[in-house]
Amino acid sequence: MANNHAVVNALDRLIAVFSKLPGIGKKSAGRIVYHILDSNPALALNLAKELEGLHHAIHRCGNCGGFTETDPCAVCSDSGRDHSVICVIESAQDMRIIEDAREFRGVYHVLGGLIAPLEGISPADLSIDKLINRLEKGGIKELILALNPTIEGDTTALYLQKQLKNFQLEITRLASGMPVGGNIEYIDKLTLSRSFRGRIRV
Amino acid sequence: MANNHAVVNALDRLIAVFSKLPGIGKKSAGRIVYHILDSNPALALNLAKELEGLHHAIHRCGNCGGFTETDPCAVCSDSGRDHSVICVIESAQDMRIIEDAREFRGVYHVLGGLIAPLEGISPADLSIDKLINRLEKGGIKELILALNPTIEGDTTALYLQKQLKNFQLEITRLASGMPVGGNIEYIDKLTLSRSFRGRIRV
Repeated sequence: MANNHAVVNALDRLIAVFSKLPGIGKKSAGRIVYHILDSNPALALNLAKELEGLHHAIHRCGNCGGFTETDPCAVCSDSGRDHSVICVIESAQDMRIIEDAREFRGVYHVLGGLIAPLEGISPADLSIDKLINRLEKGGIKELILALNPTIEGDTTALYLQKQLKNFQLEITRLASGMPVGGNIEYIDKLTLSRSFRGRIRV
Repeated sequence: MANNHAVVNALDRLIAVFSKLPGIGKKSAGRIVYHILDSNPALALNLAKELEGLHHAIHRCGNCGGFTETDPCAVCSDSGRDHSVICVIESAQDMRIIEDAREFRGVYHVLGGLIAPLEGISPADLSIDKLINRLEKGGIKELILALNPTIEGDTTALYLQKQLKNFQLEITRLASGMPVGGNIEYIDKLTLSRSFRGRIRV
């Protein structure tokens, strides 16, 4: 069939690459590539240029593990932030999301994953040693475990609590419960029970 | 705020470019770019290479207006296809979608849009002249207007019918009605009434 089929190689190859990106299926990849073809070539060239330079420009912050152009990163080197509070996150992307909420003014530590034995991810695969190094330098008062309220997140949080119990610091986790604008009717049972357990006095 | 905010330029620029692509919002763009950063640099470089070469490799078929690496395109130059039936489509992408359904064995004509006065798209903006040229060469028995069942699609179909009324050919439109697997309960009224008007004897 391939011979009779209106296959265009460069197009198909690009669609194949796009459809491997997270959240992009084959149909969206097609829509994107045709959009790029319909657009001014500058769009494709600009995207190509940025992609080409990406891994050169961006690397991991030696301190927190976040993505950065400078080392240490803008957060780690910002004297206006509270360096006594470390927010422990699964991935560098979480840092961006938390920063966008403009609520947290401390610093970060990227674990680079969550403990997931079934997927072969053990504590040794996470940057826990680096976190312990940071804690050993002293001056840290609180560790906020901003890990997803999932089995993996809970397991990792529990593991960290045990590993770090000899340090003089407060370990907290983000509140889990109903999302703002949520509706009790539609919330799942687990979340609802967490909302009850985590209820706060008003 | 931008100064205190963990902004990484190359990252932000790439997210901005991605979020301009169809169907990709700011959040998906972030997820994609972080995925690329977390992946082997080969992914970024490969995507860059394909994008860079895209507009060089792909151009419009001089006959039908579809995207192709050769001219005429694989469909137009395929003697195994029925060149007496032209399927008129809005965009080159529709050609891919129809080809994937493996139902149509004729050839195509890409209009390059639909008549939409409010958006400033008039008949002169579409490749109608080229379609007339093809018809004037003779040998065309049927024109299938595979245009979306929308106001713009209907307007364009009506316009084409009037413009082409002097040609000896059958002009048809794709059936409009309930999608396969659809449910009468959830179908909109317009589609339902079209299903009634277009009902077929079984």
